[in-house]
This record gives sequence, C-alpha cells and structure tokens, in this order.
Amino acid sequence: MHSLQMSRASVVLSRAQLFSLELATACRSISPSTTPRHTSASHRRITPACSSCLATWYPSSRRNMSSSPGLRSLNINNINPHVKAAQYAVRGELAIKSEELRIKLKEDASLPFDSVISANIGNPQQLDQKPLTFIREVLALVEYPKLLENEGALKSSFGYQQDAIDRAKWLLKEVGSVGAYSQSMGAAGIRQSVANFLEKRDGFAADKKDIYLTAGASAGVHTLLHVICAKPETGILTPIPQYPLYTATLSMLDARCVPYYLDETHGWDTSVSGMREAYEKATSDGTDVRALVVINPGNPTGASLSEQDIEEVIKFAAERKLVILADEVYQTNVFIGKFHSFKRALRVMQRRDPGVYDHVELASLNSVSKGMVGECGHRAGYFELVGWDAEVQDQIYKLASIMLCPPVIGQCLLEMVVNPPKEGDPSYEKYHKEYNTIKDGLLERATALYEAFEQMEGVEVGEPQGSMYLFPTLHLPEKAQKAAKEAGKNPDDFYCLRLLDATGICVVPGSGFGQKPGTLHLRTTFLAPGTDWVTRWTKFHKDFMKEYS
Amino acid sequence: MHSLQMSRASVVLSRAQLFSLELATACRSISPSTTPRHTSASHRRITPACSSCLATWYPSSRRNMSSSPGLRSLNINNINPHVKAAQYAVRGELAIKSEELRIKLKEDASLPFDSVISANIGNPQQLDQKPLTFIREVLALVEYPKLLENEGALKSSFGYQQDAIDRAKWLLKEVGSVGAYSQSMGAAGIRQSVANFLEKRDGFAADKKDIYLTAGASAGVHTLLHVICAKPETGILTPIPQYPLYTATLSMLDARCVPYYLDETHGWDTSVSGMREAYEKATSDGTDVRALVVINPGNPTGASLSEQDIEEVIKFAAERKLVILADEVYQTNVFIGKFHSFKRALRVMQRRDPGVYDHVELASLNSVSKGMVGECGHRAGYFELVGWDAEVQDQIYKLASIMLCPPVIGQCLLEMVVNPPKEGDPSYEKYHKEYNTIKDGLLERATALYEAFEQMEGVEVGEPQGSMYLFPTLHLPEKAQKAAKEAGKNPDDFYCLRLLDATGICVVPGSGFGQKPGTLHLRTTFLAPGTDWVTRWTKFHKDFMKEYS
Repeated sequence: MHSLQMSRASVVLSRAQLFSLELATACRSISPSTTPRHTSASHRRITPACSSCLATWYPSSRRNMSSSPGLRSLNINNINPHVKAAQYAVRGELAIKSEELRIKLKEDASLPFDSVISANIGNPQQLDQKPLTFIREVLALVEYPKLLENEGALKSSFGYQQDAIDRAKWLLKEVGSVGAYSQSMGAAGIRQSVANFLEKRDGFAADKKDIYLTAGASAGVHTLLHVICAKPETGILTPIPQYPLYTATLSMLDARCVPYYLDETHGWDTSVSGMREAYEKATSDGTDVRALVVINPGNPTGASLSEQDIEEVIKFAAERKLVILADEVYQTNVFIGKFHSFKRALRVMQRRDPGVYDHVELASLNSVSKGMVGECGHRAGYFELVGWDAEVQDQIYKLASIMLCPPVIGQCLLEMVVNPPKEGDPSYEKYHKEYNTIKDGLLERATALYEAFEQMEGVEVGEPQGSMYLFPTLHLPEKAQKAAKEAGKNPDDFYCLRLLDATGICVVPGSGFGQKPGTLHLRTTFLAPGTDWVTRWTKFHKDFMKEYS
Repeated sequence: MHSLQMSRASVVLSRAQLFSLELATACRSISPSTTPRHTSASHRRITPACSSCLATWYPSSRRNMSSSPGLRSLNINNINPHVKAAQYAVRGELAIKSEELRIKLKEDASLPFDSVISANIGNPQQLDQKPLTFIREVLALVEYPKLLENEGALKSSFGYQQDAIDRAKWLLKEVGSVGAYSQSMGAAGIRQSVANFLEKRDGFAADKKDIYLTAGASAGVHTLLHVICAKPETGILTPIPQYPLYTATLSMLDARCVPYYLDETHGWDTSVSGMREAYEKATSDGTDVRALVVINPGNPTGASLSEQDIEEVIKFAAERKLVILADEVYQTNVFIGKFHSFKRALRVMQRRDPGVYDHVELASLNSVSKGMVGECGHRAGYFELVGWDAEVQDQIYKLASIMLCPPVIGQCLLEMVVNPPKEGDPSYEKYHKEYNTIKDGLLERATALYEAFEQMEGVEVGEPQGSMYLFPTLHLPEKAQKAAKEAGKNPDDFYCLRLLDATGICVVPGSGFGQKPGTLHLRTTFLAPGTDWVTRWTKFHKDFMKEYS
C-alpha cells in the first residue's frame, strides 16, 4: 500500500485510494513506523479514510447526537461504503466551522474579526454580486404571470422594458406554467435556444434533441458518470487537481479515478503525455478506461486549454475510444487566453480529416451558476451530447425521466443566459453594463488577491487566468508542518483552519482537490468584495510564518 | 426461472427480476415452450428485460439515429447494466408517443381526437390547475426584490396584500438571494418553518437539524436509498403496486426489491402479514432486508393507512430493525378516511411504551408537487429523519453537499406550503378559497371518472380514496389478450396503446407499477378538466370490448 502511495501520477487509484494517498503522507509523518489503520479495515473494495488525519465530515453540532449501532438498523459501518468513501471538502469541516463562527459572531464580540468571508465556494450572490436585472425581471413575470395583465404599471412603476415583457410571454408559451413538469430533458423551446447559442458560439450545427437541461452541471456530471461507469474496473481519467464532484461521484459509483496531473510548472497545463501515461498504466493494471474529464477553464486552477491542447486531447480520445467529458462551466470566466470549446475543435477536426474523428463521443457541460450570471441557487445547466449512440442516449433520457425534470424556473433562466438581450433591444444597454461591471470587478478582485499572494512569504501563485479561483502553492516552514502533525492535520488543512480562526476567511485546502504528494495548496475564490479581507489575510500570514519560522 | 416467476408475492426479486416476472407472463403467452431469452443473457447479476415484449424506452424519433457499437466507446451493451435495467413507465413508450401525437395534432386533422390528455403523470398545472395566488405573488418578489421598492404600486396595480410583501421580505432575509447556494440541507429558517409545521401537524417536537430540503421527494428517495443500499444483497420491502421510482432506484443501486403485495380485495390495504411473509422468505434467501417503503396515501392506489395499520407496520419495523421510509407526499390528497402520519404514530407508541420503540428509524418525505399546490415544476420537498444515527446523518449531509443545495426558489415555495396565510391574515380568505376550489374539483373529477369506470364492462374500481389517481382492474376478453400477444405487447400495454391511438388519452399500464401475475390494471390521473375525455374513453372502451368479444 505504501509503495503504491509513494509512486507517481500514473498509478490508478480508486477514489478512496486517491485520498489515502494524501492521508498516508500525513499518517507517515505522524507515525512513520505504523501501518496506516485503513489498510486493515477494507470492506467491499473500500479503503475507509484514515480517521486520525483526514478532515472529517462530522459537523461538531452533531457530535452530541446519540449513536447506538447495536439498536438501530443503520450505522456508519453498515451503510453504503461507497457513499462513506466519497469526499467533498468544499463543504467539509472548514465550511461547517465557518458557519458556526458566523453564528458565534452575532453574540461574541471577542472574535478577532467582524465578518466571515466564504471564499470556499464559488457563490457570487452570497457575497455582493447582484443578479442581472433583465433576468430577474423576467423571472418575476413567469413566476406570477398575472403581473403581465398590467404592462403599463410594470413599465411606469418598475422600469420594465418591452423586451422583458415579451420574453416572459414567450417563455410562458413554451413552458405553460413553471409549476408544471416539463419534458424530462427540458422544454423543447428552451433546448432550441441552447442549440442556437451553441451554433453561434461554435459555427457548427447543434440539435435540440442532443441537449439535456439539468439541475446545474453537477446533476449532469452525475447522470453521465452513472451511465458510463459499468463496473468496479471502469476507470475515468480525471485531472488532479480537480473539482471534487468527479472523485466523489466516482467513489459513489464504485468506479476508478485514473488521475492525471496538471502541469503546475506550466500554469497548470493539461498535458496529453501525462494523460497517456496514466491511461497506459491503468490499462495494464486491469482498469477499463472509458472516458476522460477535462475541466476547461480549470477548477481549481483557472487555466484554459489552447486550441492545440484540445486537439491533442481529442486525438488521444479518438485513438483510445474514450468519451470526452468537457466541463466548460467557466467558459465566460477567462482573463488570460481565450475559451475554445471542445465541440468546435471536434467539428473542425472532423471537417479537416473526414472519417477519422466521426466516432468521438463528447459531452459538454455548462451552467447558469458561473459566468457573470452566478445564479447558483437556481440550479440550472445543460449538457450537449455529440456523437453518442442513440440507444445510450435513450438511457440518459430514462434517467432524466426518473428524476422527472430539471427545475422549470431554472430552465427559463438558462434560456436568458444563452439568449441575452441583443444590441438594439431596449434592455441591452443595461444588461451589457451590468455584465461588464461584474466582469471587470472579478478581474480587479483577482488581481488584488494575486498581488497580495505575491507579497506573502512561501506563497507561489500564477497570474489569475480564469474561473473564480486562485490556487496558490504553500511552502510552509518545518515547524508549521510539525505543529500540523501534532494537531493531527494535513499541513494545508492546518493552515486553512488557522486562517479561519484568525481572520474568518474560509478557503479549501489543496487536499480537497488532490495534489502531488509533498505539495501544498489552497483554493480561494476572488469573489468577496473590498480589500479588508485581503489585508486580514496578509497580516495573518505574516504572523503565521513568524510563529513557525 | 419460470417456477420463480410463477410463484407468489413473497419471493424476493431483484428489480430486473421483478419485471422479468411480468415479462415472462407475456413471453410465455407468445411462445410457451421457449425459455425466455433473458435467462441466458445475464451480466453482472442483471437480467436484461426481454426485448420482445416489454414496452421499450426508445423514443421512435431517435430510432433513425446512428448506432455503431464497434466504433464508439459506449453502446447499449457496455454501459452501466443497472441503469439499463431500471424501468420507469410513467414517462415510457406511451408518454413519448403521446407527445408525438400532440405535435401531429397540429398538422393532421385526420386524427380521431382534438386534444391529447396527459393522464399518465400527476402534473396538475400542465392541465388547468391554477397556482395559488399568494405563493406566486411572493415568488415574484423574491425573484426580483426590486419590486419591493414600490409597495404602493404592488398593492394598487397588482392587488398585493401586506402579508405577501412581508413574507417576501422575510424569505429574502433568510436566503439572501435566491441566486445564491443555500446551506446544503436548505436554508435554516425554512427548515425551521417545516419543523413548526410538523409540530403543529403531529403534536410532537420536530427539530430543523433533522429536516433536509430536497429537489422534490424523488431526490430525497434517491439520497436515502443511496445511503441504505450497501451491497447487492441489501433488500428493501416495497409495496406492489408502487410508484416505480422505488424499483428504478433500487435497480440503479444494484439492490433488491422485496415486493409485498397490497390487498386489492380490501381497497389496496397494507397488510403487515404480507410484509412479514415477504421479509421471512427474503431473509431465508440470503437477502439483508434493511428498510421498508410505505406510500401513504398510496400511489397508484390512493389508499390511506389506518392508525392501526401504521402501528402494526411500526411494530414490525421495530421487531426486525427496519428503517421505515414513509412516502407521505399525498398527505393532503385524502377523500376517504384521514391521513395519519408515521411520525405521530411512532411518537405516540414511544410515549405509551417507553423504551420499546426508541430505536425505530423513520424517514418521512413530502413534496410541493402534490396536495392542492401542485407545483411540480419547482422541484421542492423535504424529508424528516427520526431516530437516525448521527454519523449516518452526516453522510446524508455530505451527499446533499455534493449536489450543493436544492433549488432556493423551491425552498421558498415550500416555506409557504408549510406555512400558508393564517386566519385573519389579509391573504387568508383568497388562499383558502382557491385551495378549496382545487380540492373540491379534484373530488368531482375523481368521482366522474369513477362513475364512468363503474359503467364500463370488465372494469373494476374502488371509490376514489385519495392521491391523484384511479387504478382500475381490467378484465380483458380472451381475444384482446390474443391480439396483444400477436402485437408483442402485455395486454394492459396493448389496451393503453389502443386507448391513446383512439382517444389521445395517455395513461400508464399496470405493469409499470407491478401487479400480481395474471391481473391487469392501468393508472390514470383524475386531473384533466371537463367530461369530454371521459366520454371519449367510455366510447372507446365499448368499441374495444365489442371488437374483441
């Protein structure tokens, strides 16, 4: 077990094993001569996380609840082991603690900060990002169509423009009532709008029959992986670091994460050679690799793939018959370079080399949660399938049907995101201005945070490239690493916990996304307004480094 | 295989096997001497559905799409076999065909009907049920809070009352923006409202920390079964007939459905003796039965459990350490008898016999999709956990976190459903009136349909009891059964397809819910307005019976 954990990128690791890897590093540093406890406690191929050193999932508010395994049907040792093995640090121990601090702050003036900053999750409207007016104007009307009976008052008392009123009427015609189930895949008219958007974006045809509306991109990933993962040997090439939805879902599906590392030394580039190496090793170990995940722009890294990188990935997928899962939810959050869609690249290649890439299967995901819209709470998104087998698509349709349909008001919102007011429309100018203000604000905040990191001792970070995150490397002093060990924590967990306690700033340790053994990172959003919190962080970091120098 | 399929209720059947049971009946009738094809084609414990006689999932519109297994990564034979095995007839072949007819109707005057009636799915607002005004007034305000800046205009131009305005302000205070992720379990203030509702309903304490808001009850069932189903031998006692979400989810989780039959001769009563028999047989066959599902009031039957029945179920669950999953989404749709909650019954028993029932684990599910609200498209609901282990609850919290949060606007809607305007509130009278109009209308429609069925030859049906459905028994003539066989259909599928073709009325064959071998049923909602469609059905039935007499 240890030798596997010590080896590099290309080893095939199940989800649980992947996290054991980081755990083992921590375990070893606590008690180098002891076999980690988790090796002896395997159950149905599951290696439970080592309880001594992993940030656990147990909200402390629950710890006083009774737990009596003998009497009940269910206890932690007899439930689905794959659920138990799943890890999702974005809302883990730190996030729970930050919520407790937020409550404590109301009653306790002794805390060393006056606000909790949730930089752990890309949740713009929880901070101060305002929703786009046009979108919300229309949503109000589709929620309560009776408002449309007095257009005059809408305009004179509430500043509605005619295009908002018209859009609401059109949406209502498409969906009937937002209180009614739509078609399982989403309302046809809205899927057509998505197809139009994709055609315009890519310059290639899109068909609404291949577009599935979802309750956010997460639900789409869940559905797609559910269909692809056929057996415990199924492997999915997954970037490391990655948004932990992927590893969590693979864990729940009892399938294998085949990690390929992004190239930190080159701005977190996606290298096909790393992917290929991971694939070969996995295959030789008996893993049936069926798909590859690319997050572009990256989460947590923000890096965008070049056209050439994308072509290389597609060639590799074509050669090895791998489904491409392109998580493109940050496609409008790009500061450096340009977003290139997998769909367009694939179509270009198919046109250039007829017949060579026709069999490539691509699923591209998008969401209303990101971009300048940031409507996370509405849970809406879509995926487009390109080149998928018709019978397999029928199974996806069936899965969608079992869950009935994605939220219909979210479908309406998505329609506006893919089809915003156009130049010349009465709402265009305002929409455009609000959109750009948000965009500029994000770059400004990202830059301020980047500059602060640049000044911090032992912190390395690239220029903000995109998405909503920075993912700096931490070089922590020996003494800090020792203190972490003594506290039973990974060093990055330890740093992030100390940061939270001292400043109220909640971020996610790099261990939550996967990182090369021996390296330490953290992910922070750059959504929080103002510079006060950055100043708090800078001061904390200075004190921390001084304390452990 | 055949002997198993011929035997009765208490046999333990995996999801796939359960459906093979009905298939085999049909298969036999096609070719009695042939071993059904599916026995030879098992793959990872999966018995694929027999393609010759099951209503398939393939939308005919897709059939012209290319399918080239050799070239692609994914084809119908190498994807997740558990997904493939799942069945969900509520949106199956008939529903897809009905959508095609709806489109055809616009261009083709030759069809023998002028409207398609979707009686296959409980989707009130797709038909003519209007949303409750108070709810939608408030939702418009929380979607677009800027409307609150001109309360005068809201009142004078749009008839808002102060309580709607106040409610919107309160909800916005609780959730911030509906565009922001809430806590994974749902916003704390809304969970508190659910707790208040449960306390009032049951007369016993409820705690918001045990309440999980969900994207509809389906998402809740999915989460709970996901946690409980630990291995292929895990069994869940499931009523037959049942809403096929349960069998579909168990199939996807590779767990076993342990069917117990509801007592058709006594108004579809839930009998603990049948449950016990099924349990004993399952256990002796190596199934690890861990939970029982009760749908109360029943879907598709509408039957409500008496207090005594509920106590018997709880006693049985306590004795055998089974988790109770109480699907109580139709709790306000009751015409005969009264809804009794499992929570209240459990608390009463715990008070009466201290210590005896303390270890009982109950999950009770509810939804905004049903009742008089019928807000299906908003995808909102909740479940309450009673007596669950704290560490197991943490795992449920984690699952909720991986999917981030339920739709926040749906959470707001749920809050109003559990906390509607009270007597004396300005919006009370209107709310109350609208609510009762819907309630009366449902009973009226149910009764009209019931009376029509009563007049139909070979149709047996009990008085409408509750939910949104009638589930009549069909006694079809020999010749009709023969014709079905020749068409490669189950007789109930055959009848329902003929009904759709002749009248545009879409219902679900009994086979979609499970039924005792040799019996035939169909499920129809009684939501469609008017009596014209009932007249169409009566005429069709007469002609059908005449044709095959």
